[in-house]
Amino acid sequence: MPKTVVVALGGNAIIQPKQKGTAAEQRENIQTTARQISALVRGGYRVIVTHGNGPQVGNILIQQEEGAGVVPPMPLDVCGAKSQGYLGYMLQQALSNELKAAGLDATAVTIVTQVAVDPQDKAFADPTKPVGPFYTEERARELEAAKGWRMKEDAGRGWRRVVASPDPKRIVEAEAIRAIVRTGAVVIACGGGGIPVHESAAGLSGLEAVIDKDLAGERLAQEVEADILLILTDVEQAAINYRQPGETWLGTITVAEARRYQAEGHFRAGSMGPKMEAAVRFTANGGEFALITSLDKATAALAGRTGTRIVP
Amino acid sequence: MPKTVVVALGGNAIIQPKQKGTAAEQRENIQTTARQISALVRGGYRVIVTHGNGPQVGNILIQQEEGAGVVPPMPLDVCGAKSQGYLGYMLQQALSNELKAAGLDATAVTIVTQVAVDPQDKAFADPTKPVGPFYTEERARELEAAKGWRMKEDAGRGWRRVVASPDPKRIVEAEAIRAIVRTGAVVIACGGGGIPVHESAAGLSGLEAVIDKDLAGERLAQEVEADILLILTDVEQAAINYRQPGETWLGTITVAEARRYQAEGHFRAGSMGPKMEAAVRFTANGGEFALITSLDKATAALAGRTGTRIVP
Repeated sequence: MPKTVVVALGGNAIIQPKQKGTAAEQRENIQTTARQISALVRGGYRVIVTHGNGPQVGNILIQQEEGAGVVPPMPLDVCGAKSQGYLGYMLQQALSNELKAAGLDATAVTIVTQVAVDPQDKAFADPTKPVGPFYTEERARELEAAKGWRMKEDAGRGWRRVVASPDPKRIVEAEAIRAIVRTGAVVIACGGGGIPVHESAAGLSGLEAVIDKDLAGERLAQEVEADILLILTDVEQAAINYRQPGETWLGTITVAEARRYQAEGHFRAGSMGPKMEAAVRFTANGGEFALITSLDKATAALAGRTGTRIVP
Repeated sequence: MPKTVVVALGGNAIIQPKQKGTAAEQRENIQTTARQISALVRGGYRVIVTHGNGPQVGNILIQQEEGAGVVPPMPLDVCGAKSQGYLGYMLQQALSNELKAAGLDATAVTIVTQVAVDPQDKAFADPTKPVGPFYTEERARELEAAKGWRMKEDAGRGWRRVVASPDPKRIVEAEAIRAIVRTGAVVIACGGGGIPVHESAAGLSGLEAVIDKDLAGERLAQEVEADILLILTDVEQAAINYRQPGETWLGTITVAEARRYQAEGHFRAGSMGPKMEAAVRFTANGGEFALITSLDKATAALAGRTGTRIVP
């Protein structure tokens, strides 16, 4: 049986720092990313891809605000869904092309993915994740009153909406994702961490929140019974004492070691923190191993030559 | 074996005439639509849903134009992909909820769908389909020069971009769609007629065009080997001499009869024309039958009590 890998792409895989995010820039970055992913397929892995959507959903929210006088704005769950279509399309096209160029009989396909969260998640009591444009204080107060949004001042740059980032509980479309993976296609799913939904007796309903894409990738990896979770970021390995005296790059570590480093505060929230948490959860929950590395080292890391590998 | 039906939803299924298209309006319309579709699943049919995206992609294009000073606009293929995520999400959520409420063990899932067209299609020589906002003549000329767009004056209301509406040739993601249908899930695919792509030796690339959703639905129905193509619109039946002396509503007609009525010019371009063409093609290509009716008559029409049925 081929091994199944869930690949969680970092933001740089789609928009590089200092880029504005034109279609041409994104297409070029995605092409490079797709080449690396097709190398994994060529290496015999079944691949499921997930990705962030921060800059893209940010841009969609800015466009909504600019057009608010003419076009009714959509809630955050719908904007997340738009970004899944947008990036899923670009990724599946580039991946299909790279797979074909590599002589592989495989294509790539995107599933619009909802992720159930617990509406009692403590994240809802204290929304911390800024989304969308900067506003003047006046407009921020208006939006607070009109829409019940939570607004926060952001270090002198203006006011921004903040939303909760709850823990992912269930990948709603997991069965469909499994069915496509079995056909040999690369599946793109859970884009932007998935669209957060509340699951009740009445069914599903969208929530105005965002889910961390690495934590969602971990849930996805569990639900499709993946063997490996591969988290791609802008560093080749995680480190303890990062950028401090005693900085040490991590190779293979156990779940217990990783938990100890987490407790000692080595991994920053909003950066390596959720990546390490996702990696640890995956291995602790029965995965073969999780890897944290950079896009260009993906193949080498899977072969055991680099990356930070979290083992049982 | 259960019969497979491809349902092509008309625009009214999502935004009613005179509505602005707020999230709440669309959610309510989609809920009603989902109830009708769940009745088909309860009736024992396997269902694949496709839908238009005109007003939604129009709004996305307007928002892009309003935000053009701040956010790089995306090309039309990417905007179409956004609308597939957006409407696919709303439809799959509402459908899953209705299926659950009906006590059915089935969910709904959206596939981002590319549709290959022939770049030599004669439609490209004479783009006729207006998309996006109205512009002043000055801005229209600017866009023509900067982006190579074709612009046309629209009956004194301003200038609009026009794009080609080529014939759909191949549903790129057909295999994945078939795989999910086999699991018993309702699949939403080919939204807005699909994202038009050119398929060459180098792979797929997006095209700035739009595909008629009923014609794309027909291709989809063929490629998933559906038994029935069900085209939902705002009238219960097609007619000859529509709104003229001798108006006759059509019940069951053969492909040959339909072809004759087409040749006599009974079905208007941009209205019943492409619907009848899609229905005729489906049956002529080996489908069991095609039906044209309204959303609320879908079940009755499948049972043979109303609708216009095109048979071999």
